[in-house]
Amino acid sequence: MKPYTELTRKELLDLQKELQAEYQSEKDKGLKLDISRGKPSKAQLDLSMPMLDVINSSSDMTTENGTDVRNYGLLDGIPEAKKLMGDMMDADPSQVIVWGNSSLNIMYDCVARSVLFGVMGSTPWSKLDKVKFLCPVPGYDRHFGVTEQFGIEMINVPVLADGPDMDMVEEYVNNDPAVKGIWCVPVYANPTGSVYSEETVKRMAALKPAAKDFRIYWDNAYCVHHLFDEEEKQAKVLNILEECERAGNPDMVYQFCSTSKVTFAGAGIAAMSSSPANIADIKSKIQWSTIGPDKINQLRHVRFFKDADGLREHMKKHAAIVRPKFEEVLGTLDRELSELEIAQWSHPMGGYFVSFDAMEGCAKKIVEKCKEAGLVLTGAGAAFPYGKDPKDSNIRIAPTMPPMEELKEAMKLFVTCVKLVTVEKLLEA
Amino acid sequence: MKPYTELTRKELLDLQKELQAEYQSEKDKGLKLDISRGKPSKAQLDLSMPMLDVINSSSDMTTENGTDVRNYGLLDGIPEAKKLMGDMMDADPSQVIVWGNSSLNIMYDCVARSVLFGVMGSTPWSKLDKVKFLCPVPGYDRHFGVTEQFGIEMINVPVLADGPDMDMVEEYVNNDPAVKGIWCVPVYANPTGSVYSEETVKRMAALKPAAKDFRIYWDNAYCVHHLFDEEEKQAKVLNILEECERAGNPDMVYQFCSTSKVTFAGAGIAAMSSSPANIADIKSKIQWSTIGPDKINQLRHVRFFKDADGLREHMKKHAAIVRPKFEEVLGTLDRELSELEIAQWSHPMGGYFVSFDAMEGCAKKIVEKCKEAGLVLTGAGAAFPYGKDPKDSNIRIAPTMPPMEELKEAMKLFVTCVKLVTVEKLLEA
Repeated sequence: MKPYTELTRKELLDLQKELQAEYQSEKDKGLKLDISRGKPSKAQLDLSMPMLDVINSSSDMTTENGTDVRNYGLLDGIPEAKKLMGDMMDADPSQVIVWGNSSLNIMYDCVARSVLFGVMGSTPWSKLDKVKFLCPVPGYDRHFGVTEQFGIEMINVPVLADGPDMDMVEEYVNNDPAVKGIWCVPVYANPTGSVYSEETVKRMAALKPAAKDFRIYWDNAYCVHHLFDEEEKQAKVLNILEECERAGNPDMVYQFCSTSKVTFAGAGIAAMSSSPANIADIKSKIQWSTIGPDKINQLRHVRFFKDADGLREHMKKHAAIVRPKFEEVLGTLDRELSELEIAQWSHPMGGYFVSFDAMEGCAKKIVEKCKEAGLVLTGAGAAFPYGKDPKDSNIRIAPTMPPMEELKEAMKLFVTCVKLVTVEKLLEA
Repeated sequence: MKPYTELTRKELLDLQKELQAEYQSEKDKGLKLDISRGKPSKAQLDLSMPMLDVINSSSDMTTENGTDVRNYGLLDGIPEAKKLMGDMMDADPSQVIVWGNSSLNIMYDCVARSVLFGVMGSTPWSKLDKVKFLCPVPGYDRHFGVTEQFGIEMINVPVLADGPDMDMVEEYVNNDPAVKGIWCVPVYANPTGSVYSEETVKRMAALKPAAKDFRIYWDNAYCVHHLFDEEEKQAKVLNILEECERAGNPDMVYQFCSTSKVTFAGAGIAAMSSSPANIADIKSKIQWSTIGPDKINQLRHVRFFKDADGLREHMKKHAAIVRPKFEEVLGTLDRELSELEIAQWSHPMGGYFVSFDAMEGCAKKIVEKCKEAGLVLTGAGAAFPYGKDPKDSNIRIAPTMPPMEELKEAMKLFVTCVKLVTVEKLLEA
């Protein structure tokens, strides 16, 4: 196979006809496929079913500090869950708050509190003319949804192989007092799979923000979500809490994580960790909004995993299910597209996504073509603030949810659409 | 026993000595008692332990609309939980959102959203100079905590036997556009136990608010929490959603309820109901903050109760545990204090509290004296905005949590303190 750019017009026209036929035959199958969201599959969810037995009608319902988990209380979670989630994030339990089932909700509330009440005594953002967040792109659409809802101006920062472009981050954060935050997914970033390098973390921790209420929103969603069991293939990222402290910025970071992709996406537990001063600030504010989280589900998680090692062991079972799906996606892309030189894609070692970059101006059309033939992809541009991919090039592939047979079908259709749209693009030129 | 006000100074001095001795002997016991919070007792929590068996590793995890409760999705709850909680509140499932474990959290978020984004397109309250809420008093301290945190001005409205003083409510709501809300507990109000009469509900529904974004915060926390099984002793309150619709104010009310005092205070499910327009407005905003609530716990509740009748049947078991405690409290107060004419108290038919009004200027001292001898009561004034009881008279008694023996001990100490503080007050006069 020759690169498409080296084909003559005649060759392109022939190819177009061939691909159109291929596409039509796919379309005729009446497919109903979905690789749009990072959802665990049924097989993955089944892995945690035994957790539903560890708390039953004859269980001891008391925490290690003597609290009855069934009753009100413990605003920041049960001690043993603070330990478990702290270990997952490399944070001391005293720096941890464990909440309900959604880390997105925790992040949202962190932004909402800053807008309403300010951060550790600073001016509430609602009283400011302008608030900005740095948004590494491509990134997580729901992060951008949060900042957009609050009317926060979002600034694109490219994600490189080892994390966000730190020159740009430093330029903005250290000079513009309107920049109050940055969204970071340091491990197996959504959707690029990038892993922050030692240098990236150190430079992040050493920022000298113009705004004293600037915070790094460190969404460690995939910290234990390795695709491979071999340690050398697993991402190791420096401890951001420690690095910030070392750099004299102890209060600069909020870290988040959850078990949504460890146990149940709809019924896991979520947590944040930060400096003692931030945690005290947050607890002083959340005490008005709730009497405490669902502590029974926290206890259920702790009793199931015993400790963070138990949790990490459990993740190997996920990897065994998820890895072949990534291999299928990457295998298909490598085999079908690499010689054509019409696209690039990530080769992640963990997480939930493959980030695919088509030729400029092709992403929307590819997604549209796939949809017409029954394959739902995340909307083109979704991984960018305001849903606008400046190059109209990026598509996020989420391989985990469909069964393998459907995934194969989906990838076959996907590469056909990529080829067809690209050929048509080249013919237009 | 003669009324204290008819005693001579000499008689009061003798009585003081006697009561001081009694108090000292109570104090010497080194008691550690708590009737401060409306928390269910261990025996009540035990009633719901079988619920922990209905979802286990071999359960079908699919809702009636085919959703896997373990995965992401269903922003507004599973259909069967919307039915259950809707029936509990007399609302159609289409008017219901079911969330996590805390109705306080739902109410808080309703206020927060109004401050941040406005109500159905109105100006966000954060952009207004002044926002006011009407606060029926005595009332629920955590309601007032929410409004206080947002800097909302709180206006006291007396709670009469059949609900808030509606003349005053109409006067404020219909004339002052800064009045954006009123906190209502229509059934077995916290702490008075009052039940809103038909007339109160009808007048409430027929308000003609000066502010189009005025909402009634209808906290139906105790709608199924009857102390007596006989239907004629159970509060029946008109359906506020229907009454508002009938009065041409379909969008004027947000209703809330939860199973916190039905199943587990720390791990129940909570819900709200409102008009289709309000529900649509709220859903359009919460979609940014979460992918959905803990649906497994919702399914657990539905499978346990089957339906609202099952839930109401379950409440009879609570009543059997709680009723003797209320009888103990009221029996002691009636026996020890009624002839002395130094206090008044509610005789609730449900809910979690007895509201006690001491002689003016005595509440703080009584609470203080109880505390010195080892009995924790809710802080005097807690049932009023800003913690300020203008008469320093009201004390909230929460009888449910302690075992009966401790409750008896607590009430004995309480009446001793009431008498002693009152005698000292009369001697000062």
